[in-house]
Amino acid sequence: MATLDLDTDVVTLTRHLVDIESVSREEGEIADAVEAALQALPHLEVVRRGHTIVARTDLGRAERVILAGHLDTVPVNGNLPSRLEDGVLHGLGSCDMKGGDAVILKLAATVREPVRDLTLVFYEAEEIEERYNGLRLVAESDPDLLAADFAVLMEPSNAGVEAGCQGTLRFEVRTTGERAHSARSWKGVNAIHGASDVLARLTDYTPRRPVIDGLEYHEGLNAVFISGGVAGNVVPDECVVTVNYRYAPDRSAEEALAWVTERFAPHDITVTDSAPGALPGLDRPAARDFVAAVGGRVAPKFGWTDVARFTALGVPAVNYGPGDPLFAHKADEHVAVAEIEQCEARLRAWLSSGGE
Amino acid sequence: MATLDLDTDVVTLTRHLVDIESVSREEGEIADAVEAALQALPHLEVVRRGHTIVARTDLGRAERVILAGHLDTVPVNGNLPSRLEDGVLHGLGSCDMKGGDAVILKLAATVREPVRDLTLVFYEAEEIEERYNGLRLVAESDPDLLAADFAVLMEPSNAGVEAGCQGTLRFEVRTTGERAHSARSWKGVNAIHGASDVLARLTDYTPRRPVIDGLEYHEGLNAVFISGGVAGNVVPDECVVTVNYRYAPDRSAEEALAWVTERFAPHDITVTDSAPGALPGLDRPAARDFVAAVGGRVAPKFGWTDVARFTALGVPAVNYGPGDPLFAHKADEHVAVAEIEQCEARLRAWLSSGGE
Repeated sequence: MATLDLDTDVVTLTRHLVDIESVSREEGEIADAVEAALQALPHLEVVRRGHTIVARTDLGRAERVILAGHLDTVPVNGNLPSRLEDGVLHGLGSCDMKGGDAVILKLAATVREPVRDLTLVFYEAEEIEERYNGLRLVAESDPDLLAADFAVLMEPSNAGVEAGCQGTLRFEVRTTGERAHSARSWKGVNAIHGASDVLARLTDYTPRRPVIDGLEYHEGLNAVFISGGVAGNVVPDECVVTVNYRYAPDRSAEEALAWVTERFAPHDITVTDSAPGALPGLDRPAARDFVAAVGGRVAPKFGWTDVARFTALGVPAVNYGPGDPLFAHKADEHVAVAEIEQCEARLRAWLSSGGE
Repeated sequence: MATLDLDTDVVTLTRHLVDIESVSREEGEIADAVEAALQALPHLEVVRRGHTIVARTDLGRAERVILAGHLDTVPVNGNLPSRLEDGVLHGLGSCDMKGGDAVILKLAATVREPVRDLTLVFYEAEEIEERYNGLRLVAESDPDLLAADFAVLMEPSNAGVEAGCQGTLRFEVRTTGERAHSARSWKGVNAIHGASDVLARLTDYTPRRPVIDGLEYHEGLNAVFISGGVAGNVVPDECVVTVNYRYAPDRSAEEALAWVTERFAPHDITVTDSAPGALPGLDRPAARDFVAAVGGRVAPKFGWTDVARFTALGVPAVNYGPGDPLFAHKADEHVAVAEIEQCEARLRAWLSSGGE
């Protein structure tokens, strides 16, 4: 079993986390390592649900805050093991979001008497269909574990505060036809050719970019899968295009669905995954206080993040973590060492002073 | 093991063949049954190669003719077992081409002293990539087994003579892009969206319909497979469209390749399967004699058939078999019982008289 040494520095700890492969649905090994490391800390009460670990202080502070990070990554893409070069750590998950996980682990081990009570969450299956999401499962099975006054989600945000998040809607557009021998194709109807119109509607798309609370969001409409075909000499009778619509948080999930339904009509669509966005909410006191404490400019969050889930649970939340989200999910994923260290230092300061 | 009773009538025999499932690459059971039935006939010498069976008379006749049929079918499509209703036999392979196989088996059992020496060929893997084709493999391993003056390929042709055949070219058109998180899709390049242009070139296509030896051919250009996608939240960096081009026999394989290369430029194409067509060749004496003996109007063959392979081996050949090729590879595949019986009767007459 892999073990994690919390006495090492935060960058080495990030490397160790990156080198434990943890593609979604295969988080057993990394969850075991994180759980064992936290169990060794006497000031924390540790609970495990599936491959999700929750550790809490109970110091009777006036305020409780959550620090949360997911443990899974997208599929390996020739980017393991990790590689440290010129102050940059390369490797799958270095940016999204094991740098953030390492920061939480270091704070867990070293800030034994935080001025705010802490709930630390390391969860599984954030990168795949929402029904597997570890945070969602804990919110359903043990909602009390997630009660808090404020949450910091360590999603990569260039070590700055990113507020709100865009919603995500995933759906299938299915075209149908009629099979025939491809040598007499005029006797059938080609469903893949029928998908030409679906792809044309995707390529014709111009993204909406609304400004909300002074932050400019940026939508996207993308085919993420396409499949069709029966045999090499058969005109195919079905083709399925899976589309992911990322929409700004001024649209509800229902409005987003209505918009794509109209855009792809008369093609039928089948929703496979839906999660609403979250408005920036910078007017809430807890968010304002955190922004003041860590400093820097506030930016919009483009990706859907579990900030939306915390918002729905009534817990004000922001994204704040090391790493440029532009490199998340890319072959050359990486994170600047300085950003990991900066996040650790600023959060340490916030947890060590200014509380009541 | 399934057994075949060659004393039964040709329609019942067709049903038995249909009910032995034999999707390409799974022809073991049907080949065993055919081999055992032929081995029981003392006037035939039987040879097996893989799941291909060749049975020959050796009567010292002045002329040797081949009767050939393939044993495999396209994938099951809710159309097994067979069903006989109002003079029509329904079921996978009833048309393409177990009716023809049954005719050959009946003639094998009942025409013990044909006026032309017979070579009967039952072969595997006609419906899939050419490298698996049983007739091809025997032509390579035992070319002498296929020496003959004329060949009748029992492909469905409405119990009439269909001359020549169209060529087939199968190739992949690959579009590439750059992965990115789908929430920041403008940082990547979507390869599935790139395939929109490929599909547009397919839907814009108008088939060529040249007239050759008085027969009108009809080309076709169809996507038979499409696939792409990495994960539900990743802009995909590759999409592959597999296309099947069916072309009239006035084009060579090289000319067909040059045409599709130009049509899809600048997209790269990768050929996965290529088989040239065959000109009708109705001017050859053996073809002329056969047409005169079985009667009826001669039509063009749209599908690629192994007539082209016989032509390349120097054996004049035509398609002649029961079944409407429009129903080949369709869920409601079927054959008129009368056509099976007519093919049996006319071939029996041709083999029983008129020889030297």
